[in-house]
Amino acid sequence: MKLRVYTDRMSQPSRAVIIFCKTNGIDFEEVRIDISKRQHLQPEFKAINPMGQVPALVDGKLKLFESHAILRYLSYAFPGIPDHWYPGDLSRRAKIESVLDWHHSNLRRGAAGYVLNKALAPALGLQLNPQAAAEAEQILCSSLSKIESIWLNGNGKFLLNSNQPSIADLSLVCEIMQLEVLDVNDRDRLLGPHKKINEWIDNVKMATRPHFEEVHAIIFKAAQKLHTRQAKL
Amino acid sequence: MKLRVYTDRMSQPSRAVIIFCKTNGIDFEEVRIDISKRQHLQPEFKAINPMGQVPALVDGKLKLFESHAILRYLSYAFPGIPDHWYPGDLSRRAKIESVLDWHHSNLRRGAAGYVLNKALAPALGLQLNPQAAAEAEQILCSSLSKIESIWLNGNGKFLLNSNQPSIADLSLVCEIMQLEVLDVNDRDRLLGPHKKINEWIDNVKMATRPHFEEVHAIIFKAAQKLHTRQAKL
Repeated sequence: MKLRVYTDRMSQPSRAVIIFCKTNGIDFEEVRIDISKRQHLQPEFKAINPMGQVPALVDGKLKLFESHAILRYLSYAFPGIPDHWYPGDLSRRAKIESVLDWHHSNLRRGAAGYVLNKALAPALGLQLNPQAAAEAEQILCSSLSKIESIWLNGNGKFLLNSNQPSIADLSLVCEIMQLEVLDVNDRDRLLGPHKKINEWIDNVKMATRPHFEEVHAIIFKAAQKLHTRQAKL
Repeated sequence: MKLRVYTDRMSQPSRAVIIFCKTNGIDFEEVRIDISKRQHLQPEFKAINPMGQVPALVDGKLKLFESHAILRYLSYAFPGIPDHWYPGDLSRRAKIESVLDWHHSNLRRGAAGYVLNKALAPALGLQLNPQAAAEAEQILCSSLSKIESIWLNGNGKFLLNSNQPSIADLSLVCEIMQLEVLDVNDRDRLLGPHKKINEWIDNVKMATRPHFEEVHAIIFKAAQKLHTRQAKL
């Protein structure tokens, strides 16, 4: 049975997994789970991922969730994946693990929390929460500064001064792309000061084209819809 | 040069790393970083971990932080570590990765947030924050329920129905042990309903003794101090 990947392309970790599969020529079937229609909470999907979150993967008997776990698994279980995505070299791999683990309580918590509470909540039937947005903004700004000063310190095109992308580059850049749904001025206020981060985003886009743009089309469309709605208010 | 591990034993991920090293006979030097004295923010330590967090590791040229990255690295870079800690089997390893990744935004966010805002803040020069504690409690309770119903579902002594512990067992149990600093009634209110979790904690203690108790001595001492102080108020 073909590898199945359960995704909602509005979810940033879903996009990272799809882009990884497409860029590396992994043969897979994409099963769409629409979070806005609460399909992630249906028993059929909870039989795949009892936590009710996308992305999830089914490969033969294996049912797997959490995007970083999925990206690692795809890197080592499928033949022919270039080593730079998840290196065999122990020290290099360990440094990438460090970025992946750091991501959860820092960039992800900040970016996802800010975007949800500042812009996306109504589309999910929730209320905007200015206080939660302000708290998330602090974490987001601190995370962006740290990425720029620590992991993009050097002349490499990617994190950890590398000239090839890893699964950490893909995961973190997809997270930052979620800021596209913000008001353009707000997004520019947050990302504008970070020249290296903007160059790095472009480098990840280039390394994964044309899939990066194709898989992100949904987020540009959602952004346009949100901005049109805001302009009418 | 001998492996150096930078820790504050009051930090739950520090304890997980020390217990792992001791249980597996890894020869290392423990360098204490006292967070309450803000040693983690000193330039000497930031040269090891620019994020200013413990635990961190130095092994030859490699400087590494994030406890899960450290536990993985120790598992595959040091000879003779039993396979069950971080299995070579791809599917089994992937499932453990899933638990490790889930931990960050769920059990860790809930438990660490609750303990800090309910009990530990004054010891770190911060104020208790009842609203943040209430939000963290929701995440903590939901996380404990999910661990019990999903990952401890089965007859195995450890997560994922296993009869041997993995690095995920060690990381998550050390996190839960942080609840020891709470008022005893509060701790029992949170953990009491979870019979399987309490059994699992005992199983991890047994599998790593006598190191588990020895490394946790500091937390029992801190708990006693906090409870005595509270009794006097």
